[in-house]
Amino acid sequence: MIVEIADILIKQDRKREFEQAVFAALTTIFPKAKGFRGHVFYRCIETPGRYSLQLTWDTLDNHTVDFRGSSLFTEWRALVGDCFAQPPHVEHFECVD
Amino acid sequence: MIVEIADILIKQDRKREFEQAVFAALTTIFPKAKGFRGHVFYRCIETPGRYSLQLTWDTLDNHTVDFRGSSLFTEWRALVGDCFAQPPHVEHFECVD
Repeated sequence: MIVEIADILIKQDRKREFEQAVFAALTTIFPKAKGFRGHVFYRCIETPGRYSLQLTWDTLDNHTVDFRGSSLFTEWRALVGDCFAQPPHVEHFECVD
Repeated sequence: MIVEIADILIKQDRKREFEQAVFAALTTIFPKAKGFRGHVFYRCIETPGRYSLQLTWDTLDNHTVDFRGSSLFTEWRALVGDCFAQPPHVEHFECVD
Protein backbone atom coordinates (compact mmCIF):
# COMPACT_ATOMS: atom_id res chain seq x y z
CA MET A 1 0.00 0.00 0.00
CA ILE A 2 1.24 3.48 -0.88
CA VAL A 3 -0.22 6.91 -0.34
CA GLU A 4 -0.39 9.58 -3.01
CA ILE A 5 -0.27 13.01 -1.41
CA ALA A 6 -1.46 15.83 -3.67
CA ASP A 7 -0.68 19.31 -2.37
CA ILE A 8 -3.26 21.45 -4.16
CA LEU A 9 -3.74 25.20 -4.44
CA ILE A 10 -6.95 26.34 -6.08
CA LYS A 11 -8.29 29.65 -7.32
CA GLN A 12 -9.86 31.61 -4.48
CA ASP A 13 -13.31 31.79 -6.01
CA ARG A 14 -13.56 28.04 -6.70
CA LYS A 15 -13.68 26.54 -3.21
CA ARG A 16 -17.25 25.28 -3.21
CA GLU A 17 -17.02 24.02 -6.79
CA PHE A 18 -13.70 22.26 -6.11
CA GLU A 19 -14.86 20.53 -2.93
CA GLN A 20 -18.05 19.34 -4.60
CA ALA A 21 -16.05 18.07 -7.60
CA VAL A 22 -13.65 16.12 -5.37
CA PHE A 23 -16.57 14.51 -3.54
CA ALA A 24 -18.15 13.60 -6.86
CA ALA A 25 -14.87 12.03 -8.02
CA LEU A 26 -14.47 10.12 -4.77
CA THR A 27 -17.92 8.66 -5.34
CA THR A 28 -17.97 8.10 -9.09
CA ILE A 29 -14.40 8.00 -10.46
CA PHE A 30 -11.82 6.74 -7.96
CA PRO A 31 -13.84 3.71 -6.80
CA LYS A 32 -13.60 2.42 -10.39
CA ALA A 33 -9.81 2.71 -10.46
CA LYS A 34 -7.71 -0.46 -10.14
CA GLY A 35 -6.02 -0.66 -6.75
CA PHE A 36 -7.74 2.39 -5.25
CA ARG A 37 -8.25 1.82 -1.52
CA GLY A 38 -9.32 5.04 0.15
CA HIS A 39 -8.85 8.73 0.75
CA VAL A 40 -8.54 11.58 3.18
CA PHE A 41 -9.39 15.09 2.02
CA TYR A 42 -8.12 18.02 4.08
CA ARG A 43 -8.64 21.79 3.81
CA CYS A 44 -5.78 23.97 5.07
CA ILE A 45 -6.55 26.32 7.95
CA GLU A 46 -3.73 28.82 7.37
CA THR A 47 -3.54 29.05 3.58
CA PRO A 48 -6.84 29.78 1.78
CA GLY A 49 -7.32 27.50 -1.23
CA ARG A 50 -4.73 24.92 -0.11
CA TYR A 51 -5.85 21.29 0.17
CA SER A 52 -4.18 17.95 0.88
CA LEU A 53 -5.81 15.10 -1.00
CA GLN A 54 -4.34 11.78 0.10
CA LEU A 55 -5.27 8.67 -1.86
CA THR A 56 -4.28 5.13 -0.92
CA TRP A 57 -3.40 2.65 -3.66
CA ASP A 58 -2.31 -0.97 -3.58
CA THR A 59 0.80 -0.19 -5.63
CA LEU A 60 2.61 2.83 -7.07
CA ASP A 61 1.80 1.61 -10.60
CA ASN A 62 -1.91 1.53 -9.79
CA HIS A 63 -1.72 5.31 -9.61
CA THR A 64 1.09 6.31 -11.97
CA VAL A 65 0.44 3.78 -14.75
CA ASP A 66 -3.07 2.31 -14.45
CA PHE A 67 -4.96 5.40 -13.29
CA ARG A 68 -3.01 8.08 -15.12
CA GLY A 69 -3.20 6.04 -18.32
CA SER A 70 -6.95 5.55 -18.10
CA SER A 71 -9.96 7.56 -19.15
CA LEU A 72 -10.75 7.94 -15.43
CA PHE A 73 -7.80 10.34 -15.14
CA THR A 74 -9.19 12.39 -18.02
CA GLU A 75 -12.57 12.49 -16.24
CA TRP A 76 -10.91 13.55 -12.97
CA ARG A 77 -8.95 16.37 -14.54
CA ALA A 78 -12.01 17.54 -16.48
CA LEU A 79 -13.87 17.83 -13.17
CA VAL A 80 -11.24 19.72 -11.18
CA GLY A 81 -8.53 20.98 -13.55
CA ASP A 82 -10.02 24.40 -14.06
CA CYS A 83 -10.07 25.03 -10.29
CA PHE A 84 -6.27 24.69 -9.88
CA ALA A 85 -4.30 27.90 -9.37
CA GLN A 86 -1.15 25.94 -10.30
CA PRO A 87 -0.33 22.30 -11.09
CA PRO A 88 -0.72 20.19 -7.91
CA HIS A 89 2.47 18.90 -6.31
CA VAL A 90 2.11 15.12 -6.13
CA GLU A 91 4.45 12.59 -4.57
CA HIS A 92 4.01 9.10 -3.15
CA PHE A 93 4.72 7.83 0.33
CA GLU A 94 4.99 4.60 2.27
CA CYS A 95 4.34 4.08 5.97
CA VAL A 96 7.44 4.13 8.14
CA ASP A 97 7.25 1.00 10.27
CA MET B 1 -10.08 17.61 15.53
CA ILE B 2 -7.37 19.10 13.32
CA VAL B 3 -4.39 17.58 11.59
CA GLU B 4 -0.92 19.07 11.70
CA ILE B 5 0.98 18.15 8.54
CA ALA B 6 4.74 18.58 8.80
CA ASP B 7 6.59 18.36 5.49
CA ILE B 8 10.09 17.41 6.55
CA LEU B 9 13.38 17.18 4.67
CA ILE B 10 16.26 15.63 6.56
CA LYS B 11 19.99 15.33 5.94
CA GLN B 12 20.71 12.32 3.74
CA ASP B 13 22.89 10.51 6.29
CA ARG B 14 20.36 10.78 9.13
CA LYS B 15 17.52 8.56 7.94
CA ARG B 16 17.86 5.74 10.44
CA GLU B 17 18.50 8.13 13.34
CA PHE B 18 15.55 10.34 12.36
CA GLU B 19 13.07 7.49 12.01
CA GLN B 20 14.11 6.00 15.34
CA ALA B 21 13.84 9.42 17.00
CA VAL B 22 10.33 9.97 15.64
CA PHE B 23 9.22 6.57 16.91
CA ALA B 24 10.72 7.35 20.30
CA ALA B 25 8.84 10.66 20.39
CA LEU B 26 5.59 9.00 19.34
CA THR B 27 5.99 6.64 22.28
CA THR B 28 7.39 8.89 24.97
CA ILE B 29 6.67 12.56 24.15
CA PHE B 30 3.50 13.07 22.10
CA PRO B 31 1.27 10.79 24.22
CA LYS B 32 1.92 13.18 27.13
CA ALA B 33 0.78 16.23 25.13
CA LYS B 34 -2.65 17.72 25.86
CA GLY B 35 -5.10 16.97 23.05
CA PHE B 36 -2.79 14.67 21.07
CA ARG B 37 -4.88 11.99 19.37
CA GLY B 38 -2.74 10.08 16.88
CA HIS B 39 -0.30 10.07 14.00
CA VAL B 40 0.67 8.81 10.59
CA PHE B 41 4.32 8.82 9.58
CA TYR B 42 5.16 8.57 5.88
CA ARG B 43 8.47 8.28 3.99
CA CYS B 44 8.51 9.75 0.48
CA ILE B 45 9.26 7.36 -2.37
CA GLU B 46 10.48 9.92 -4.93
CA THR B 47 12.43 12.39 -2.80
CA PRO B 48 15.09 10.87 -0.51
CA GLY B 49 14.94 12.37 2.98
CA ARG B 50 11.42 13.74 2.61
CA TYR B 51 8.81 12.71 5.21
CA SER B 52 5.21 13.62 6.00
CA LEU B 53 4.47 13.50 9.71
CA GLN B 54 0.76 14.03 10.35
CA LEU B 55 -0.39 14.50 13.92
CA THR B 56 -4.01 14.74 15.02
CA TRP B 57 -4.97 17.13 17.81
CA ASP B 58 -8.27 17.98 19.47
CA THR B 59 -7.80 21.69 18.74
CA LEU B 60 -5.36 23.98 16.90
CA ASP B 61 -4.32 25.51 20.23
CA ASN B 62 -3.41 22.07 21.59
CA HIS B 63 -0.57 22.08 19.06
CA THR B 64 0.34 25.72 18.55
CA VAL B 65 -0.08 26.94 22.15
CA ASP B 66 -0.09 24.01 24.59
CA PHE B 67 2.49 21.77 22.89
CA ARG B 68 4.78 24.42 21.43
CA GLY B 69 4.80 26.24 24.76
CA SER B 70 5.68 23.15 26.76
CA SER B 71 8.91 21.38 27.66
CA LEU B 72 7.68 18.47 25.50
CA PHE B 73 8.35 20.62 22.41
CA THR B 74 11.89 21.27 23.63
CA GLU B 75 12.36 17.51 24.09
CA TRP B 76 10.99 16.81 20.59
CA ARG B 77 13.25 19.32 18.91
CA ALA B 78 16.27 18.08 20.88
CA LEU B 79 15.56 14.57 19.55
CA VAL B 80 15.11 15.42 15.86
CA GLY B 81 16.24 18.99 15.24
CA ASP B 82 19.76 18.10 14.20
CA CYS B 83 18.43 15.76 11.48
CA PHE B 84 16.57 18.51 9.59
CA ALA B 85 18.12 19.74 6.34
CA GLN B 86 15.86 22.80 6.59
CA PRO B 87 13.06 23.97 8.91
CA PRO B 88 9.99 21.73 8.41
CA HIS B 89 7.01 23.29 6.65
CA VAL B 90 4.07 22.91 9.04
CA GLU B 91 0.44 23.82 8.47
CA HIS B 92 -2.86 22.65 9.94
CA PHE B 93 -5.82 21.09 8.20
CA GLU B 94 -9.41 20.12 8.83
CA CYS B 95 -11.38 17.35 7.16
CA VAL B 96 -13.56 18.49 4.28
CA ASP B 97 -16.99 17.06 4.97
